[in-house]
Amino acid sequence: MTEMNQRIVLASRPTGEARSDNFRLETVAVPALEDGQVLVRHHFLSLDPYMRMRMNDGKNYAAPQAIDEVMIGGTVGVVAASRHPNYAPGDSVVGMGGWQQFAAVNAAVPGALRKVDASVIPLSAYLGAVGMPGVTAWVGLIHFIEPKEGETIVVDAASGAVGSAVGQLAKARGCRVVGIAGGPDKCNYVVDELGFDACIDYKAHRDATSLGAALDAAAPSGVDGLFENVGGMIFDTVLSRMNAFGRVALCGLISGYDGESLAISNARLLLTQRLRLQGFIVSEHMHLWPAALKEMGGLVATGTLKYRESVAANLAAAPEAFIGLLKGRNFGKQLVKLT
Amino acid sequence: MTEMNQRIVLASRPTGEARSDNFRLETVAVPALEDGQVLVRHHFLSLDPYMRMRMNDGKNYAAPQAIDEVMIGGTVGVVAASRHPNYAPGDSVVGMGGWQQFAAVNAAVPGALRKVDASVIPLSAYLGAVGMPGVTAWVGLIHFIEPKEGETIVVDAASGAVGSAVGQLAKARGCRVVGIAGGPDKCNYVVDELGFDACIDYKAHRDATSLGAALDAAAPSGVDGLFENVGGMIFDTVLSRMNAFGRVALCGLISGYDGESLAISNARLLLTQRLRLQGFIVSEHMHLWPAALKEMGGLVATGTLKYRESVAANLAAAPEAFIGLLKGRNFGKQLVKLT
Repeated sequence: MTEMNQRIVLASRPTGEARSDNFRLETVAVPALEDGQVLVRHHFLSLDPYMRMRMNDGKNYAAPQAIDEVMIGGTVGVVAASRHPNYAPGDSVVGMGGWQQFAAVNAAVPGALRKVDASVIPLSAYLGAVGMPGVTAWVGLIHFIEPKEGETIVVDAASGAVGSAVGQLAKARGCRVVGIAGGPDKCNYVVDELGFDACIDYKAHRDATSLGAALDAAAPSGVDGLFENVGGMIFDTVLSRMNAFGRVALCGLISGYDGESLAISNARLLLTQRLRLQGFIVSEHMHLWPAALKEMGGLVATGTLKYRESVAANLAAAPEAFIGLLKGRNFGKQLVKLT
Repeated sequence: MTEMNQRIVLASRPTGEARSDNFRLETVAVPALEDGQVLVRHHFLSLDPYMRMRMNDGKNYAAPQAIDEVMIGGTVGVVAASRHPNYAPGDSVVGMGGWQQFAAVNAAVPGALRKVDASVIPLSAYLGAVGMPGVTAWVGLIHFIEPKEGETIVVDAASGAVGSAVGQLAKARGCRVVGIAGGPDKCNYVVDELGFDACIDYKAHRDATSLGAALDAAAPSGVDGLFENVGGMIFDTVLSRMNAFGRVALCGLISGYDGESLAISNARLLLTQRLRLQGFIVSEHMHLWPAALKEMGGLVATGTLKYRESVAANLAAAPEAFIGLLKGRNFGKQLVKLT
């Protein structure tokens, strides 16, 4: 009997918010392996905000996700069969297998598969703190913000996979760290569990005046570094509290993925405060991955770096979990368990 | 008979546009020299857009210009008397003597006075291409934009002291250079005399659609580097044409000095195009001045770098000349002749 593969394809592009009917669940045969290919059985699929941007058409940093094709996505799993000499059944591997249970991967393509050690670090962490989100945190903070001891660092989406790592890395470097997150549960977690100095609940501060006052209280010396995941009013308001020579790592604009305006009203401050702002995509800084993965892997293996996961069960749950992620309903790194 | 010194002080802060009644002309005695001081007779006063920002109160990168004090400003002149061993009557010097005919300068203060050679380079050029504006062009372009051969560089206020130098330096490095300036005379000058590849008359393109179409024609491969002096709609529109990994040196925001909104509507592009944006003030990069002055001085001495001056006669004409500068009525580096 042929083994079957469940997969989710992009059925249509969203107009405004992404909806579950933009996705379609299909069942197809597991592909037969060609020479050089490896069949990976996925244990976890990673859901990440960048996917929303790929669902749109038009100018972007990557080609749009094609209609009727398997949704892109990071995966971690175990080799089920191999026609490549470097991989054997049972190997744990990370890749970009997409929203599906199995993927046949051309292992010769650089970066397509990476063997990982699941004996010390849980497999799922390779999609979070020891994977793309963790490296994103490291590159944005260490490479672009360049935090110095005693400085104040602000990060939004603070309880998420990237934000939680940013804050803990900055704390370890002697910074005052202020998170921004949605709701008291996330804020308490950010301060009590992750050790941030303060966390602002943006749902309790819906306008710039209110959020600005909360920032003044949480960051009384102003803001030296901003790791920006959200955009919109939150970004604009934190910018207005930046100190001279402040640095902004612009990593994501979740609030604008549905097409909302993302204006910076305080453009004057970029000059008067001599700010440096850098938009970046972690996959374009591959030379930094080894150093980042080394530090992140060590911190996770020793239990020094804390992280939280929000795990949806089964591939069919992925669209709703993804839509929840975009609305901030997840709490910690959003995964889908596929086994 | 005591020699008299004409000077202009800030009489009041502008509300909106600067007006001539914000300034007051006074006649006072030339100060008696103290030990260590040098009396400089100013030949030229430099008028620069940054002065408008200093006239405002509130958060800025420098202390506001004090009311009833001599307006700050760069000056070039000749030593009339000296009680400092390093300076003798007849020496040509550059300083920050302010809007007045004479200044008594404490020569021991680092950077207060700089002796210059007026035998090859005209004295006035030390306030332009071989002075603060020229170094500003050099630092923003060479240090922050880092132009590469074949790239497209855009600079606004292109016929001005800074913009004209930016474009010529970029041309010398093998870039395609597109200027933005106000009116056909300035645009013709920028292309025919300065050698830019194209110049867009912003007065003929009053909205983003029209200006954007002109940019598409003048910069068909998109924009890799932007040297921004103006802000507002022009800035916002050029941003929308930036290529991936583009660099923006944010040097001035003339269009917003009177308090107009300076929103960036295309904040999403900062991320999707992975742009780097850096606000800067040339006086905070003193380590770059020697290299910049060496190149600029050589280019002016050999006649390679072209520049134009707009010279107002007598101190009393300074307020109107300054207001004209802010409205783009000047054509080239705005000076006031004081002898």
